[in-house]
Amino acid sequence: MSDLGITVKKSEDFSEWYTQVILKSGIADYAPIKGCMIFKELSYAVWEKIQEIFNEKIKRTGHKNVYFPLFIPEGFLKKEAEHFAGFVPEVAWVTMGGDTLLEEKLAIRPTSETIIYATYAKWIRSWRDLPIKLNQWCNVVRWDTKGTKLFLRTREFLWQEGHTAHATKEEAEKEVMDILNEYRDLMENYLAIPVLVGRKSESEKFPGALYTTALEAMMPDGKALQMGTSHNLGQNFSKVFDIKFIGEDEKEHHVWQTSWGFSTRILGALVMVHGDDKGLVLPPKIAPIQAVIIPIPYKNADISTILAKAREIYEKLQKAGILTVLDDRKEYTPGWKFNDWELKGVPIRIEIGPRDVKHGQITLARRDTSEKITVKEEKAVDAVMGLLEDIQRNLFNKAKKFLEEKITAVKSYDEFKEVLKTKGGFIRASWCGSGKCEEKIKDETGATIRLIPFEKEEVSSNCIYCGGEAKEVAYFAKSY
Amino acid sequence: MSDLGITVKKSEDFSEWYTQVILKSGIADYAPIKGCMIFKELSYAVWEKIQEIFNEKIKRTGHKNVYFPLFIPEGFLKKEAEHFAGFVPEVAWVTMGGDTLLEEKLAIRPTSETIIYATYAKWIRSWRDLPIKLNQWCNVVRWDTKGTKLFLRTREFLWQEGHTAHATKEEAEKEVMDILNEYRDLMENYLAIPVLVGRKSESEKFPGALYTTALEAMMPDGKALQMGTSHNLGQNFSKVFDIKFIGEDEKEHHVWQTSWGFSTRILGALVMVHGDDKGLVLPPKIAPIQAVIIPIPYKNADISTILAKAREIYEKLQKAGILTVLDDRKEYTPGWKFNDWELKGVPIRIEIGPRDVKHGQITLARRDTSEKITVKEEKAVDAVMGLLEDIQRNLFNKAKKFLEEKITAVKSYDEFKEVLKTKGGFIRASWCGSGKCEEKIKDETGATIRLIPFEKEEVSSNCIYCGGEAKEVAYFAKSY
Repeated sequence: MSDLGITVKKSEDFSEWYTQVILKSGIADYAPIKGCMIFKELSYAVWEKIQEIFNEKIKRTGHKNVYFPLFIPEGFLKKEAEHFAGFVPEVAWVTMGGDTLLEEKLAIRPTSETIIYATYAKWIRSWRDLPIKLNQWCNVVRWDTKGTKLFLRTREFLWQEGHTAHATKEEAEKEVMDILNEYRDLMENYLAIPVLVGRKSESEKFPGALYTTALEAMMPDGKALQMGTSHNLGQNFSKVFDIKFIGEDEKEHHVWQTSWGFSTRILGALVMVHGDDKGLVLPPKIAPIQAVIIPIPYKNADISTILAKAREIYEKLQKAGILTVLDDRKEYTPGWKFNDWELKGVPIRIEIGPRDVKHGQITLARRDTSEKITVKEEKAVDAVMGLLEDIQRNLFNKAKKFLEEKITAVKSYDEFKEVLKTKGGFIRASWCGSGKCEEKIKDETGATIRLIPFEKEEVSSNCIYCGGEAKEVAYFAKSY
Repeated sequence: MSDLGITVKKSEDFSEWYTQVILKSGIADYAPIKGCMIFKELSYAVWEKIQEIFNEKIKRTGHKNVYFPLFIPEGFLKKEAEHFAGFVPEVAWVTMGGDTLLEEKLAIRPTSETIIYATYAKWIRSWRDLPIKLNQWCNVVRWDTKGTKLFLRTREFLWQEGHTAHATKEEAEKEVMDILNEYRDLMENYLAIPVLVGRKSESEKFPGALYTTALEAMMPDGKALQMGTSHNLGQNFSKVFDIKFIGEDEKEHHVWQTSWGFSTRILGALVMVHGDDKGLVLPPKIAPIQAVIIPIPYKNADISTILAKAREIYEKLQKAGILTVLDDRKEYTPGWKFNDWELKGVPIRIEIGPRDVKHGQITLARRDTSEKITVKEEKAVDAVMGLLEDIQRNLFNKAKKFLEEKITAVKSYDEFKEVLKTKGGFIRASWCGSGKCEEKIKDETGATIRLIPFEKEEVSSNCIYCGGEAKEVAYFAKSY
C-alpha cells in the first residue's frame, strides 16, 4: 500500500488510524501552534452543512442567532462560584493591549453564560420581553494541557451555544428537552450516529447548572464521546446576575434559564464511527459532495463521447439537487482518483467507461459497502437518490447495532472491571447514588458515569461499588 | 416624539442620530465590556445574508471556506517587518493559560496572513498544488484605544479574509481585481451603497502588501468609509515564510499572493447611508424581513375576517419566497407596530383593514419614500416583488446621486481646505506623488488619500500642496 493511503487498519491501531485518516484525507491538519488545529475545506464544509441544518431547526422554533464578545472580564466569570471554579483552570487570559497592561485581565470565552447574562440583566424588564432565545456560532478556548487530538482535544474549537431565559420553570424544562431532541435528530438522522440520552450525575454536570442532559455516542474503541449537552440553569445565574422581570402578576421574579451546545468535536465522532481502512465515509446528508463522476478513458475508446456523457449525467444530477463533482482532470489516472475520493469519503462514485456508453448505462459504486451496480442512464437520478438514502440508512443501522452490542449490564464490581478491560463500551450498573462511589470507580478504573437514563430503569443488584442499596441505574464508560 | 423613536434629526446631529438608530432599532448594542459590541439578531441576520451572498460568489469561482486558529505566536507576526510594525501597536496578547505564564506570548489575530502562510509553506510543493484559494469568516481583534463607535470602531469585529497563492504574478493580479469586482457588486447591487474603487497610496496600503486596492463609500456627513480591501502581496510573504513550489519548468519559485477582506463595519455604512429620521432603512436584498403584514382591526369590524385575509396573504408571499412576517400581536396597537417596524427598516408594510377586505385589496407602504399604494389582493405577490425591486433601485440611485454630488475637483490648496471645511466629501486634486505632501495635508487638514483611480485621470494643476509637477490625480477625504 502506498504512502498516500492509510497504512494501518482501523481494527489494529485505532488511534494511529484516526490521525492518518484525518491527515491523508485532508479533512483537517495540525496548526503550526501547539494545541490548535486547522479546519480545512472538507471539515469546514461539513460544519457549514451542520450549521445550515441546525439553524433551520432552531429558527423554526423562534431562536435567533447573535454574536457576543470574545472577551469576558474576570469579574463576570467569578460571579457564579461553581462556574468560575469549573472553568478557571482552563482559561486563556489576555493581559496586554498593545504594550499596555490591562487593568483587569480578560478571559477568552470558554463559554459565554456570564457575558450574555450580564447583558440579559439589562435587556429584560417585563414578562413581555420573555422568552429570550438566542444562539451563537463562535470559537471558544479552553487551555487544555494534555496532548492534542484533532477535533477532540484542541485549545480552540468551534461550537454553537444557545442561551435562553424564561418566565417559568416549566418553560425552561421544556426548552432543555426540546433542544436535546433536536440534537438527537441531528446526530442520528443527519450524522448517522446513534446516541444514548439522559442526565449527568452531579459531578459531571455543567458548572453552575441545576442539571445537565447529554447525548453520548460510542466509538469503535469502546470509549464514549459526548455529542452535546443541554443544561437547565434554574435560577443560579439569574440570581447572581440579577436578571429580573415584572410578571403578569405585577411582582418581580428571577428568570429561569437554559444553555446548550455542541462543538466541532462531533466531526471527530463522524470520522471514528463511519471511517474504514480506505479512509473517511461521510453520511450523504452531511456530505459536501454526494457523488463523484469519473470518466474512464480506455485506450482505443472515443474519449470525447465518454466525456460528453459524463457531463450530461453531471448536469442531470446537479439539477436534481445532488451535490456532484465531475472529476475530469487529465493529470491523474482513474485508479488514483478512485483512491482519492474514497479517502475523502464521497458516498457514491459513478464510473463511465466505453462499455457504459455503449450500453447506455452508468456504474455506481457505493462507499459504505464497496458494492457496484449498473443502471440505465435514464434512471441515473432515481438510482443515485435511492442509493444515497440507502447509504444513510445503512451507516446508521450499522452504528446502531454496534452501539447496542456495546452496552453490557453487570451485577458486580468485578464483572464491571472485567467488561471494561476486555470489551469497553457502556456498562449498565446499579448505583447507590453517592458521589463517593462514583469517584472511587473513576479513580480505580477510569470510567465515569456518562448518563443516568431519564426513565428510571429497574436496578438489578445493590450498588456495585459499596454494596449499599441501589437508587438507580447508571451508564458508565471510559470517554474522550 | 416619544422616547421610543429617534429624538434627533439625521441632518442636525448625525453622530447622535447614528447611535440612537442602532440602539433604538435594536440592531446592535454596547457590550458590558469596554470597546466591544453585541451583534443582536437584526444585525447578525443581515450579516448572515451577506455571508450567503458572498459565499455563493466565491464558491462559484473555486474558493473554499476554512478556519485557522485565533492565536498567532509573536514570532510569526514578526517575520514580515512592515506587517509587524503595522499591527503590533494594536495587538491583544494572551500571556497566561490557566495560571501558567506562556513561554511565548500569543497575539489574538488582528489578521491571519502569518499563521496561514506558515501553513501554506507546508502544504505547497508543486505547481499542481496551485492556486490555493481559501477564505475564512471569523472574529479579529485590534486593540483600538480611541472611543467605541458601534460597527465602525470596536476592539473585536467580524470579517471574512481571503488568502490565495498563485504560480504567477499575472494570476495574482487578476485575483486582486476579480475580488475587488465581487466586492463592488456586493456593495452596490445588494447593500445599495455606491463606491469608488482604486488603489491606496504607499502610506495607506496594507502593511506588507505590494499594493492595496480598495472600495470607498461616502457617508452623509461627508466622511469616507472604506468598505473593503483587496491586496496584492506579491512575494513579500512567500519570501519570508519560504513558500516555494516546483514549477512546470522543474525550477523552484516563490508563490505570488493576495489577501482581501471586508468586515462588519459595512453594517455601519448601511445604517448611515440609508437610515432616516424614522430609523433604519434596509435594502430589500439584504433585509432579513422584506415585508411585514399588519392587520388593522377597526372597532365594529369583524377581526376574524381580517386575520384570515392577513394569513392568506402571508402564505402567498412566503410561498413566493418573500421574507414576510405577520404581526398579529394583540398587546400592541397598529400605530405602535408601524413605528416599530419603521424603526427596524422593513422595506414594505402591508396594511389590511376592514375597507381592504371589503374591496379585496391590500395597502402597501414603502419604507424609503413613505408612499402608499393600494393593489388588488390577487396582485399581491407581483406588487410586492415589483416594489422590492423599486426600493432597491431607489436606495442605490439616491446614494449614487449623493456620492456624485460629494466629489469636488479643486485646483489649489486653499480651495481644498475650503471644500473640506464647508462641504466635505471626496476632493479630487492633483498630486506630485510624494509621501511628504500627503503627510503634510493629513497633518494640516485631517484628510487622507482615499484612492488613486486605476485609470489615470488627467491632472488639472500642479501638486496642490508643493506646487511641483503633478504626477496623478488622487481622491482625498476625511474618513471613519
